[in-house]
Amino acid sequence: MRRILPLWLLIMLLLPVTDARAQQTIAERLGYPRDAKLLIVHADDLGMAHSVNAATIKAFESGLVNSGSIMVPCPWLSEIAAYARTNPQADLGLHLTLTSEWTSFRWGPVMPKDRVSSLLDKDGYLYLTETEAAAHADPKEVELEITAQIERARALGIQPTHLDSHMGTLYQNKALFEVFLRVARKQKLPVRVAKTWFARTDFLPSALNADDVYIDRILDIDPTVAANDWAKFYSDTIKTLEPGVTEVVVHLAYDDAEMRGATFNHPNWGAAWRQRDFEFFTSDAFRKLLQENQIKLITWRELGKLIK
Amino acid sequence: MRRILPLWLLIMLLLPVTDARAQQTIAERLGYPRDAKLLIVHADDLGMAHSVNAATIKAFESGLVNSGSIMVPCPWLSEIAAYARTNPQADLGLHLTLTSEWTSFRWGPVMPKDRVSSLLDKDGYLYLTETEAAAHADPKEVELEITAQIERARALGIQPTHLDSHMGTLYQNKALFEVFLRVARKQKLPVRVAKTWFARTDFLPSALNADDVYIDRILDIDPTVAANDWAKFYSDTIKTLEPGVTEVVVHLAYDDAEMRGATFNHPNWGAAWRQRDFEFFTSDAFRKLLQENQIKLITWRELGKLIK
Repeated sequence: MRRILPLWLLIMLLLPVTDARAQQTIAERLGYPRDAKLLIVHADDLGMAHSVNAATIKAFESGLVNSGSIMVPCPWLSEIAAYARTNPQADLGLHLTLTSEWTSFRWGPVMPKDRVSSLLDKDGYLYLTETEAAAHADPKEVELEITAQIERARALGIQPTHLDSHMGTLYQNKALFEVFLRVARKQKLPVRVAKTWFARTDFLPSALNADDVYIDRILDIDPTVAANDWAKFYSDTIKTLEPGVTEVVVHLAYDDAEMRGATFNHPNWGAAWRQRDFEFFTSDAFRKLLQENQIKLITWRELGKLIK
Repeated sequence: MRRILPLWLLIMLLLPVTDARAQQTIAERLGYPRDAKLLIVHADDLGMAHSVNAATIKAFESGLVNSGSIMVPCPWLSEIAAYARTNPQADLGLHLTLTSEWTSFRWGPVMPKDRVSSLLDKDGYLYLTETEAAAHADPKEVELEITAQIERARALGIQPTHLDSHMGTLYQNKALFEVFLRVARKQKLPVRVAKTWFARTDFLPSALNADDVYIDRILDIDPTVAANDWAKFYSDTIKTLEPGVTEVVVHLAYDDAEMRGATFNHPNWGAAWRQRDFEFFTSDAFRKLLQENQIKLITWRELGKLIK
């Protein structure tokens, strides 16, 4: 005769486990102490331009920038795909792209244009801004396009460790975020989400569940910081870093002719801006700050291993 | 009573006109003496890269490079389209594009990909070489794509004065050339064709008729010329220029990080090559050679006016 545990006992036995899981921080789930300061130094926009690829690869070599994400629709994808194939250990994700924001230099979708027409402006490119993109995007076409971006990346030999969203288009409304999350779960990849966003974006906590992997906070430069105060801003950020998993999002490139040509009318995230990011995050000062503040660099690859 | 000329008289009266037209050189049709030396200094590949746009615009300002053509599928189209809109006098044509030849830096078609699949390689870009492109291209899809390129250019405010073919793909076989010619005639635009090509490409003379406008010869650098002999090669070419209409085809860009990144594994038409072209064709030496050899610069715009 088979013995079956009474339901009340089963519940009693399982409850502590569930509770412990729910109460575990993401740092603890990764196997670190609760008070560990864990940092991902993440470079966005790979594939966009040669200058971005070259500066980011150089920064990866410093070991101080340890993660990045790739824009599949962009013209320099092949260059970074070649890097990904020869550096399979690199922590490279996909920077899913639904905007084409520079006025002199544009790109379109991966899908055939007539199948994602809600994503395209009158010139046949992706929209210039995340607001326009989100206002026009049919979620079904978004799902087709971001899936096509992931498939093209894989076909080129990129094994993405995580997904995020260029200019945050996929966080602009609930319908887009749900598409993003559905695709990410299908791919078993973590998405860029921080607990600190829950307060300002009400649909985030309800869309996520206990199996999703997200981090504690995401930091980036405040665009009002003057160029001369750049290093001080980042140093203060590192010195006051709270325990848990933080991602600092940076945009690396050289202040060269190509980047100036692309960003000539947009100093924010422009050529000089990206050169400043490159200089700080490859500097000995940054390396020293990490050591002095007992900050450990981790990657999205580690986070992805928590996904079942 | 209406008088009608007898048919034999009509034929006799018209014959000399037809004969004279057939015997007129292209220089004469343009209103120049038969022995005039007329030259178009033509920069290819506009729109391909910022470096190409910047160097070519600089060369236009010298007045010594006086014509160019634009690659519509390329990422920097918007930048050169803005130049075309603010410089409507510029002699800008379209460099119809069916190849994407750099391995680190790629582009796709203007048409939705599923409607021109015969033009695409396994990665979804235009083929790397003109040979592969011509071998796979369905002429009907070529017609759709080059028409779409012309329409996109016009939509962006470019008023093309002529058409040519990137890497000569549209001259690879009779079927492709016939598509090219049909589209050009519909658009009432001259195409890059030289009488000196008739011997080596047998389908050219039979495809053309007396109403088509083509020039006497097209010159470009011999890739075996050593870098140090570049200026001498071009100087000798100018000094020995024959009467009639000649186009010298050049490829301008700066030898900078972007061009080196694109052309790193392909020195022919590479970054240093393009910088050498830029230096010679914007030099005082070239200006002096034009004067000393009584060479007059003309444009495709003038040639286009001959089309009825």
